[in-house]
Amino acid sequence: MESLGWLVLHGIGTCAYAASGAFVALQAKYRMIGVFILGLTTSFGGGVIRNTVIGVPVTKLWDRETLLLVVGTLAILYILSTKWIHHWKKWGLFFDSIGLASFSLQGALYARQFGDNLGMTVMAALFTGIGGGVIRDLLAGRKPIALREEIHAILAVLVGVAVAIGGRGFLEPIPLLSTISIVVAVRMFAVRYKDKVWDKLMLRR
Amino acid sequence: MESLGWLVLHGIGTCAYAASGAFVALQAKYRMIGVFILGLTTSFGGGVIRNTVIGVPVTKLWDRETLLLVVGTLAILYILSTKWIHHWKKWGLFFDSIGLASFSLQGALYARQFGDNLGMTVMAALFTGIGGGVIRDLLAGRKPIALREEIHAILAVLVGVAVAIGGRGFLEPIPLLSTISIVVAVRMFAVRYKDKVWDKLMLRR
Amino acid sequence: MESLGWLVLHGIGTCAYAASGAFVALQAKYRMIGVFILGLTTSFGGGVIRNTVIGVPVTKLWDRETLLLVVGTLAILYILSTKWIHHWKKWGLFFDSIGLASFSLQGALYARQFGDNLGMTVMAALFTGIGGGVIRDLLAGRKPIALREEIHAILAVLVGVAVAIGGRGFLEPIPLLSTISIVVAVRMFAVRYKDKVWDKLMLRR
Repeated sequence: MESLGWLVLHGIGTCAYAASGAFVALQAKYRMIGVFILGLTTSFGGGVIRNTVIGVPVTKLWDRETLLLVVGTLAILYILSTKWIHHWKKWGLFFDSIGLASFSLQGALYARQFGDNLGMTVMAALFTGIGGGVIRDLLAGRKPIALREEIHAILAVLVGVAVAIGGRGFLEPIPLLSTISIVVAVRMFAVRYKDKVWDKLMLRR
Repeated sequence: MESLGWLVLHGIGTCAYAASGAFVALQAKYRMIGVFILGLTTSFGGGVIRNTVIGVPVTKLWDRETLLLVVGTLAILYILSTKWIHHWKKWGLFFDSIGLASFSLQGALYARQFGDNLGMTVMAALFTGIGGGVIRDLLAGRKPIALREEIHAILAVLVGVAVAIGGRGFLEPIPLLSTISIVVAVRMFAVRYKDKVWDKLMLRR
Repeated sequence: MESLGWLVLHGIGTCAYAASGAFVALQAKYRMIGVFILGLTTSFGGGVIRNTVIGVPVTKLWDRETLLLVVGTLAILYILSTKWIHHWKKWGLFFDSIGLASFSLQGALYARQFGDNLGMTVMAALFTGIGGGVIRDLLAGRKPIALREEIHAILAVLVGVAVAIGGRGFLEPIPLLSTISIVVAVRMFAVRYKDKVWDKLMLRR
């Protein structure tokens, strides 16, 4: 799985979860240390869950490049944060959506290697997709977003279904980037319209 | 450890924790997605802790049968849930007790293989027994039941002591099912009488 | 890494985290079971995170000596607890500082073996140092101390930097004990003066 597509997914997902942790920390009025701690634990914590679910040793996470990427992302965000004050919530959501898309893609692609078992692929997408957000929200003392917002888990499941049907083709640049874009667009749209559409689709009681 | 008794314990424990997650989600007024997410994370999260404690690779959890069992249990519960509205708390407790009993039995039996070290057997029973409930309660934003309710941890410890004395005999159908029944009965009784008896036994300050 | 220094660090760190869990439980007015559960989960939970981060199998934690040490520490603390009632917070902080120092030293020393990569050593110190406290605070329903108190994470990072420069010399008795003493002293001092000095140093907004 050491293809270019995999490395790109890993890089995008890790950076996006780091940024989403930083935005949650800024929203909660934490300062520099809080931004770094929550950013680092979200991105590496999400990676620990992903590696545990798909059976890759956790120590594979600790390479110099990933570390520089995460610390660099957090430093840039912290320096820029004073100018973005009014957009924290929106940006947090944006990066959380990218993290969700890329980690669920990775989980699904990994599970897909062992044959086309729909259930396994969907579960791997679900658990690797929501893991980083769950760690971040527990550390920040909030209920995990996967339980508060239904579209979050639904998108991870849909990515799993898509990969179960489409297979390794998703590692090519175009399907990979379009999947991430679609997930982010649907998520931002759904949250903006306050789940109204989804309420009807899910026949909520 | 791939005996029939082990598989039965694994199946019963996983289903019971899935159901207890679903009942907590229903109590918290979550809808379909919440029921599935909390049910899946409780049963597989408990399995991850159990496998980590006893040193079995986490990827062993991801077999097709367990997945079908958990998803089937959750689907049936969700469909039936509207009719059981007034019993969520009691049913949640019932399934949590079954999960506690079967996971602590598994932890203790596994540790027992490596010789009759009482301390290790009891610790393995304790940590595998309470793991699923801890994951569920953290995700639902509640204090873990193992800290709120003393009988919970005491029963896991007693299962450990029983296995340390009785050994592999607990994998036979009759001792296995009677242990689970006794744990469930004692737990339901203790919670009903609001820990009054236990308060005296523990000489609470 | 099975040197004497390593074993001493493991023993001190595990006992200190057990004690800090027990003090948090006493502060929260939990009784005997609560003290044991929170003490055991803090010390072994911290060990699970440390072993996961540095790639040592989690099952290595379950040896008879560590278990006796932890259970003995908790029993002594529980028996003495009625006489210390007014010092729980201070003692909790004291033991948390020892746990922080010894676990971050272990993480850093382990990472240092693979070459002098400053970033990796610092990250290993940070994550192994704060892990036990994070587990304890999540279980007790509090925000993790690493996010509430900046000096906590800063000290773990500084231990990482010191080990990256000083190397394996830190396994000798004198540097080992002086590092732990310095960390504990700085932490207690910083908390006492309510972060005033640090506020200025960090140029808090």
